[in-house]
Amino acid sequence: MSKDLKIIGKPQIKIDANIRVTGEARFGHDVQLPNMLYGAILRTKYPVADILSLDTSKAKSLPGVKCVITANDIDTENISYRRDHPILKKNKVNCIRDEIAAVAATSKEIALKALELIEVEYKINEGIFDPFESIKKDSPQINDFIDGKYENKNIAENFHYEHGNLEEEKAKSKFIVTERYTLPRVTHCCMATSNITADYSKTDGKLTLWSTTQVPFLYQRDIARALKMEPSNIRIIQVVIGGGFGSKLDMYPYEPICAILSIKCGQPVQLIFSREEEFIASPTRQPMVFDLTTGADESGRFTFRDVKIILDNGAYTSWGATTPFVMMQTFSSLYHCPACNFDSTAVYTNNIYAGSFRGYGNPQATFALERNIDLLAEQIGMGKAEIRLLNSNYQGEVTNQGLIFNTCGHKDALEKVISITSGNNKPNTDNKNKSKRYKRGIGYASMLHVGGGAKIYPSDGCGTTLKLDPFGYMTLITGSSEIGQGSETVLAMIAAEELGIDISKIKVINTDTDIKPWDVGVHASRTSFVAGNSVLGAVNKLKEKISPTAAIMLKTNIEDLKFENGQIVSVKTGASIALDKVIRAIHFKGNHELCIETYFYEPSSEFADKEFKGNVSGTYAFAAQAIEVEVDTYTGNVKVLDIHVAQDIGKVLNPLGLAGQIEGGVVQGLGYALTEELIVENGYVLNPNFHNYKLPTAMDVPRIHFYPIETEDSLGPYGAKGVGEAPLIPTAAAIANAVADAIGVKINSLPVTPEKVLRAIAEKC
Amino acid sequence: MSKDLKIIGKPQIKIDANIRVTGEARFGHDVQLPNMLYGAILRTKYPVADILSLDTSKAKSLPGVKCVITANDIDTENISYRRDHPILKKNKVNCIRDEIAAVAATSKEIALKALELIEVEYKINEGIFDPFESIKKDSPQINDFIDGKYENKNIAENFHYEHGNLEEEKAKSKFIVTERYTLPRVTHCCMATSNITADYSKTDGKLTLWSTTQVPFLYQRDIARALKMEPSNIRIIQVVIGGGFGSKLDMYPYEPICAILSIKCGQPVQLIFSREEEFIASPTRQPMVFDLTTGADESGRFTFRDVKIILDNGAYTSWGATTPFVMMQTFSSLYHCPACNFDSTAVYTNNIYAGSFRGYGNPQATFALERNIDLLAEQIGMGKAEIRLLNSNYQGEVTNQGLIFNTCGHKDALEKVISITSGNNKPNTDNKNKSKRYKRGIGYASMLHVGGGAKIYPSDGCGTTLKLDPFGYMTLITGSSEIGQGSETVLAMIAAEELGIDISKIKVINTDTDIKPWDVGVHASRTSFVAGNSVLGAVNKLKEKISPTAAIMLKTNIEDLKFENGQIVSVKTGASIALDKVIRAIHFKGNHELCIETYFYEPSSEFADKEFKGNVSGTYAFAAQAIEVEVDTYTGNVKVLDIHVAQDIGKVLNPLGLAGQIEGGVVQGLGYALTEELIVENGYVLNPNFHNYKLPTAMDVPRIHFYPIETEDSLGPYGAKGVGEAPLIPTAAAIANAVADAIGVKINSLPVTPEKVLRAIAEKC
Repeated sequence: MSKDLKIIGKPQIKIDANIRVTGEARFGHDVQLPNMLYGAILRTKYPVADILSLDTSKAKSLPGVKCVITANDIDTENISYRRDHPILKKNKVNCIRDEIAAVAATSKEIALKALELIEVEYKINEGIFDPFESIKKDSPQINDFIDGKYENKNIAENFHYEHGNLEEEKAKSKFIVTERYTLPRVTHCCMATSNITADYSKTDGKLTLWSTTQVPFLYQRDIARALKMEPSNIRIIQVVIGGGFGSKLDMYPYEPICAILSIKCGQPVQLIFSREEEFIASPTRQPMVFDLTTGADESGRFTFRDVKIILDNGAYTSWGATTPFVMMQTFSSLYHCPACNFDSTAVYTNNIYAGSFRGYGNPQATFALERNIDLLAEQIGMGKAEIRLLNSNYQGEVTNQGLIFNTCGHKDALEKVISITSGNNKPNTDNKNKSKRYKRGIGYASMLHVGGGAKIYPSDGCGTTLKLDPFGYMTLITGSSEIGQGSETVLAMIAAEELGIDISKIKVINTDTDIKPWDVGVHASRTSFVAGNSVLGAVNKLKEKISPTAAIMLKTNIEDLKFENGQIVSVKTGASIALDKVIRAIHFKGNHELCIETYFYEPSSEFADKEFKGNVSGTYAFAAQAIEVEVDTYTGNVKVLDIHVAQDIGKVLNPLGLAGQIEGGVVQGLGYALTEELIVENGYVLNPNFHNYKLPTAMDVPRIHFYPIETEDSLGPYGAKGVGEAPLIPTAAAIANAVADAIGVKINSLPVTPEKVLRAIAEKC
Repeated sequence: MSKDLKIIGKPQIKIDANIRVTGEARFGHDVQLPNMLYGAILRTKYPVADILSLDTSKAKSLPGVKCVITANDIDTENISYRRDHPILKKNKVNCIRDEIAAVAATSKEIALKALELIEVEYKINEGIFDPFESIKKDSPQINDFIDGKYENKNIAENFHYEHGNLEEEKAKSKFIVTERYTLPRVTHCCMATSNITADYSKTDGKLTLWSTTQVPFLYQRDIARALKMEPSNIRIIQVVIGGGFGSKLDMYPYEPICAILSIKCGQPVQLIFSREEEFIASPTRQPMVFDLTTGADESGRFTFRDVKIILDNGAYTSWGATTPFVMMQTFSSLYHCPACNFDSTAVYTNNIYAGSFRGYGNPQATFALERNIDLLAEQIGMGKAEIRLLNSNYQGEVTNQGLIFNTCGHKDALEKVISITSGNNKPNTDNKNKSKRYKRGIGYASMLHVGGGAKIYPSDGCGTTLKLDPFGYMTLITGSSEIGQGSETVLAMIAAEELGIDISKIKVINTDTDIKPWDVGVHASRTSFVAGNSVLGAVNKLKEKISPTAAIMLKTNIEDLKFENGQIVSVKTGASIALDKVIRAIHFKGNHELCIETYFYEPSSEFADKEFKGNVSGTYAFAAQAIEVEVDTYTGNVKVLDIHVAQDIGKVLNPLGLAGQIEGGVVQGLGYALTEELIVENGYVLNPNFHNYKLPTAMDVPRIHFYPIETEDSLGPYGAKGVGEAPLIPTAAAIANAVADAIGVKINSLPVTPEKVLRAIAEKC
């Protein structure tokens, strides 16, 4: 990549930044359609109960109410990864989110009033809220819709992975650490609450959904299955998304419910969550308990990892149950390790269920692994930096799970954050008294994550159609979706760079399944990598179409053409011609052609085999974080001073967008580490509001230092890798390690609240 | 075309029919955007006046008013074909339509109230309402924005065409007829009134227009020029159109006005005409006076035509002034004619101005020519059928203007309607008394019209992008537009036919300039021909992509593949495979490709030269109508009994859509012939409502008999030609000829009102 880049690598304000800050952006909440109705959902009052009766007659007779539905009124398939989730629940409710009726009315107020008029008679039952209780053989079955995959009726999903000879490696190990780690529920806290607008045409049987999904083509198929419709008769239009972070990967009951209301009424219906509903009824990060044993030989080389994970699945199975796919990579392949035994079980409980959340299990896995590494280092008497450097991943490594590290910036990243923080780990010396109260510590953590998609579907590719108009402006139609990660901007930068035009001349269209080429969706930090490569392929096709005419007009050879500054230049003769002029010549003269080209990029990744082995991603991202904290030993308060992030991003495409991803991710990790927890007790959500759910705000953000590691992966666009999830992944681990370092205690759960810190100090004394 | 067709030629309900009849279709009136304002326009109170003062202060201070603009507030270019039309008029008004101020407010009611509060002081001036007065040398100049093209300042446009030796042919002529014909103003009477919604983003400077334009890409360029913007920063989204008929070919002041209101307010603005406004301020068919002399030799062969036309241009120049382009074809080339002298002058007056209207001058020209033919036949003593058959056009003819009749159904069409009506022209014999009062007559008329576009722009082509999804459904993105003519349906039929899939599996996308490939727009009966060929080209590319994989899967040769019933079949082995399965194989296996292809079709037509000669259309349509009428000689009422239409449509694509075009066109011709006239006196529109403007309704429709003539043009899709304008063109001429035949008078103007009939009978006696 010796190419002289003019746009790539230079700071570019997100192309949708202005409309977002001025309020011009149209979110789902802003969708207005003629004759639109307003939907609302009645959820159970109790997490575990039988529904003895459900009387909607009063609600139905309220003026303005167009439709009231219960499970008896609909004919649908169960949804969710395990198809264990009925859209409306009939005789029995299993968790506090459970939808039991829904209303469409001419105003939001009337819809909510109608919910109040629905009379439900419950018989409250005892629930199981602890997965360790639930998994016991004699526990009653929680979910009625499971298939026979597991003998134990409360197991939602089990994954087993192994490599190497565990017993042999154990025997070799001079040092062994065994710990239990408990990771909490956190939720995405999207600023825009969940919303959908459904518009069904009774005359042609077609359904249009203004949706926030981040996987529109899979969503189209899923919602079609739920509604027993043809997928192609459903058009998904993605609205501007006010926060995604993985929460829009799955389909939730409110979505088909809204569609059904529209189908029943023959009118558009809009359904928007309140903030309280958003806390209670949106997905969460999967809460887990890890029992992790790791070993090292006398030189400090890692020997084996043996991990058993229990995931609290909640009452139904969303994507959270599949996070072990990602977690097993961390245990198998982050730092070289000869043997690994991984076993995870997602267990039904009567709690709310977890979905997908940025990092997809990896923050949890990385927390457990990196905490154990610190403990191993302490046992060995080795530096926490040194043990990591010794075991770090390397370029060309093919891990025991089959991941191929075409490039690898792991060691560089570690070295960077270690060198920067080296010597910082000193007590605060400017105030002797203060130093007794305030203890400083440094924590390190690395991470490994897919950086070019993850093959979980027969295609992990992305299509792009580029259309140049006679004025030299471009429409870039990408299959990929913008959920705030800045992909529109990066894709436009790539097209602008290659075609030598100003980015302001590029419009990105990416919201309509009827129009855009197929893409698997936003997940696995794949968009810059996969969609970026797709744009590159499409631009190349465009240039192939444009060049022959340009060469004739410039009396030069095709090989001598350069696209820059809106011109096509002959590097041989110096002659140049405006790009739009050539486009017009192609369109209006000669053979009369349009400059429209479509390209589909499929990464070289492969499905994992039955043993979960295989090179599932186009490339892999690495990062190391070093975090300095100061613990107030009187109050237990942890103050994060500096967060040093070194991340192998392959190549910086847009420094501004990258900084946004890094800072946003780190702050999300900060909340996970210190303050955030969605508290669920006996099935009830106790803090469904921003008063009691402590999301970090601007005032809480420490100094964040970012050091991009450019490994220039030959498969990535300009060498780039995905960056979206990585920055969040090691933050909580590094903070926990820093707190442990500061006050010499074990930190085995999150969040590290002042209460926990004080208790740990007290227990130690 | 021996191909066995499964869909083409079979009746197909329009794919947008259901949503139109159930009210689900979303017209411009249904567009709703967040924070949308409502616009209204203040027009002059007097057709000709100086504006001495214009005070908007009271209007501006009305609560809810966001913006009031006058000519002083805007910086725009003049619009219209001759750039003689300021968007808002400043010191002087020239016709009753003139826009002098505009308002945007939070409700329609407030906007209208604000108009009332604008104080205008006028000095009323004398106007010129007769083009023959206006063209006099000493007449005052009407339009202040003309260029110096013509010495006479009141000439808007002059066209001169000639071929052959007029004097020689005159000398040869044994029979000569000279007449003056006066054609009235009629208007389109679209059921949906004019509307636009403008949405300007202050942050990114982009403007989106929900527009009814029928030429979106030219409109984008025109509105950009008016607003001094980059065309590519304007996105045109076409709403469902409730009646077009050519009225949406030009841009009118209300459109940039609405855009300016949105730009000034930074909010969306919607502007919708009232019905009265629609009558007063929409375009009309060009009113004209023809002085026509035609000759024939002793055998009845036509020798020459000499025509001078004065067009009442109104105060500004819309497309009406260019109708001579079409009219000269009728005089030069309908029926073989050795010499032609054509001279037309569009003259400014203080009347309202005319735009484009289905037929584009041809109903007027055909009326004049066909009336003269009847008079020639009478002079010669020849049958009115015979003289037409004798002179009819023929296949392979290259007319003196350079039109090439690759196929020609003129004579077949004439023979059909003549044979059907032969012997019908008898007085009503079942009641002797009645027969004295009621006189029956038969009239014939032919027409020639472009049937495959008209080269008026460097490209007359159309692009198509076809996208197949993994379920075998197709998105057909066409550059062409649907304005009610049924083109979406025909294009979907073509794709369905070729790909062997059900038409319900095809969605047509055709409303967004950012997305759809370029097309010149809906005019000149070009869409089925040009866009149809474009779809054929794109389907062929798709099949080329699909076939190799299908051949491998079926273990057969590519040449042996047939696409039918959603399957790909090997005609050799009989083996078959579902199309969607092959699409998935291409997408999800092997090279991983999408089935998306784009094709651009450019017809072989050429620009006319300086002498207006050249083969400007891909093909030409012909028609003959024979109409039987009964005239009540006591009341003057004309009752149309039967309308026989034989039209060379090349090939029937959709019999239902074709019938709709034929019937709709004929009824529009019926209104033009008998009842419709927009009465303008001293510049005022006297009948701006459906009470006094007599549009035919269902009760007025006679029996219409349609005989398609299938000439199967080798250049048309399946042999088809354009059909949209033709059915209207000869109807008024044939009705006038029938009335003349029935009561033995001359009919030299339209509409043929009872009053005119009675007066003619009285004058004859």
